[in-house]
Amino acid sequence: MEQPIRFGIMGCAAIARKLSRAIKLSSNATIVAVGSRSPDKADGFIKDNGLPENTKVHASYESLLDDPDVDAVYVPLPTSLHLQWAVAAAVKGKHILLEKPAALCVADLDQILDACEANNVQFMDGTVWMHHPRAAKMHDLIQDPHLFGQLKMVNSIASFHAKPEFLHDNIRVRPNLDGLGALGDLGWYCIRFILWTADYELPRTAVAFPNPVKNEAGVLLSCGASLHWENGTVATFHCSFLAHRTFQATAVGSKGTLTLSDFVNPLEEKSAGFIFASQSGFKELITGWKPLPSNHVIPTEIPQEACMISEFSRLVGDIRDGGAKPEKKWASISRKNQVVMDAVRDSIDKGFKPVQIVG
Amino acid sequence: MEQPIRFGIMGCAAIARKLSRAIKLSSNATIVAVGSRSPDKADGFIKDNGLPENTKVHASYESLLDDPDVDAVYVPLPTSLHLQWAVAAAVKGKHILLEKPAALCVADLDQILDACEANNVQFMDGTVWMHHPRAAKMHDLIQDPHLFGQLKMVNSIASFHAKPEFLHDNIRVRPNLDGLGALGDLGWYCIRFILWTADYELPRTAVAFPNPVKNEAGVLLSCGASLHWENGTVATFHCSFLAHRTFQATAVGSKGTLTLSDFVNPLEEKSAGFIFASQSGFKELITGWKPLPSNHVIPTEIPQEACMISEFSRLVGDIRDGGAKPEKKWASISRKNQVVMDAVRDSIDKGFKPVQIVG
Repeated sequence: MEQPIRFGIMGCAAIARKLSRAIKLSSNATIVAVGSRSPDKADGFIKDNGLPENTKVHASYESLLDDPDVDAVYVPLPTSLHLQWAVAAAVKGKHILLEKPAALCVADLDQILDACEANNVQFMDGTVWMHHPRAAKMHDLIQDPHLFGQLKMVNSIASFHAKPEFLHDNIRVRPNLDGLGALGDLGWYCIRFILWTADYELPRTAVAFPNPVKNEAGVLLSCGASLHWENGTVATFHCSFLAHRTFQATAVGSKGTLTLSDFVNPLEEKSAGFIFASQSGFKELITGWKPLPSNHVIPTEIPQEACMISEFSRLVGDIRDGGAKPEKKWASISRKNQVVMDAVRDSIDKGFKPVQIVG
Repeated sequence: MEQPIRFGIMGCAAIARKLSRAIKLSSNATIVAVGSRSPDKADGFIKDNGLPENTKVHASYESLLDDPDVDAVYVPLPTSLHLQWAVAAAVKGKHILLEKPAALCVADLDQILDACEANNVQFMDGTVWMHHPRAAKMHDLIQDPHLFGQLKMVNSIASFHAKPEFLHDNIRVRPNLDGLGALGDLGWYCIRFILWTADYELPRTAVAFPNPVKNEAGVLLSCGASLHWENGTVATFHCSFLAHRTFQATAVGSKGTLTLSDFVNPLEEKSAGFIFASQSGFKELITGWKPLPSNHVIPTEIPQEACMISEFSRLVGDIRDGGAKPEKKWASISRKNQVVMDAVRDSIDKGFKPVQIVG
């Protein structure tokens, strides 16, 4: 690559601090500009995160998008602003790394993806866990017909126990900013894990669990659903701002079981683990299992968010420097994630009735 | 105790081999008789399991129940025979250790429990995992308001991948023998785990997942449900004869998370583990968790089924030798397990509609 991918950061959200560090840790990416309606905030962001002194500050997102030195933007804005600013970025030819949830609904996301396609820009959402080398290793195992077999059931749980003030005021629970609440913030991850285990074959039906918890503004604080495929495979998930920090995921095939307790954010940065069992039986008189499940620990040289930046930047570099076309896999995965999330929300709105999922 | 509790084994089911070993390993219990309609089978059972040569063989269950040297019976018969033989045992004053599922429905179980009460006999069902010292340790943690807080969500999975012939012919999938199929055999455990985490407060509603798998005789091979309490707590479970051996359970409170991968049968006999996390947070920039979850390993001197036999025999000894009344806790827990199982089955029969749970 002739020169690293030059990122502009759109806004100074808390999550942008983490991603700024990730960009610094990625050999093929660099931050060249920060856009914020508050230049003071942008200056502070540059200092606090140790960005180069010559990092440009743009006093508006428009100005950031007009900067010819910016190849790609990282967009950590509230979800309700994704449609406007992701489309604007695409129109300006900027490649887009968009925080999750990608959009408020699939109709919005389709406008974003259409704009990306029309302008030949790379799209990727910020579902970081998929980029850890652990995910590749797990994927190899669960796609193995001898070790894992046919997918039968999946459960994923994503939660953290938010403080009372969060539940009323935080961006993630304000109807005009992140109206999808816990479903958008945490359910997105759960659904992604489920789709990933199913090799992105969409389920046919979603049924939300009754009586999700909402705040006074009607934003979801806790909810869940079951998802059903025609072949009998069942997945369940639960996401909540009201329960202890939990990122538990289990996938069971006809011949194997995968389980991990930290699927969204690894317990430690330098390596991440999971448990895999295959062809487990009992010893005589059920005095134990044989073979025992295996603990796998997968090291990573850079944190998973830097893995994501590197992969995104590699794709952008191929386009910018090599004349390649955008990799559409990431748009397709995001869209399926959104389609399922929409179906769960519809099921909630329709009194927990089954909702057909149409890709 | 003056003399060990003298067990009669009703039938020679495969599971009886495991329990015979457990009785031999329990210092306060002994096997004195085996009842079987096939005396040859009973003789073989006595030899194969190393029971004393003077173990009596009864050629009928009636004769076993008439034996004045028998204090208690272990009943591993198919579920459809539980009502008849558990009631007959109670009427004869025999204490009853009844394999799970306790009965085909709560109306049947109530007849059994009424007979036990009327005849002053101890009742316990064979849900072995609860008797492992691990369960007591886990219970202490999840009942701690500072470490675990309020229960928010639970998931339990119990499955094994049965061979094709099992799915057609095994006792556990024959409508006239164990008509509850996977729900009775494995779902029973899942429901028990859920009730145990909820300190036996019954959920208010059960909603079965759509499209459970049945065999050609209509017996459930795979199914699941969500359970809902008035305070918003949600539990889900899935049980299956079609998926790899999995006994995964997770309970999430407002302040803590409990998870284990072998809740029904420990991976090893001499000790069993679980993972508990409390007040988990992230390090700065989410580079890891702090504190990390703790791995707990709980040793046991005797296997969990021997722990169960010892506890049952202790209660029976208190009645036989000390004039105590039966401990009603075990009947109450079985009944709640059955009530929830009935509700799930009803929800399946009613097209996966919510079913109110009435204790």
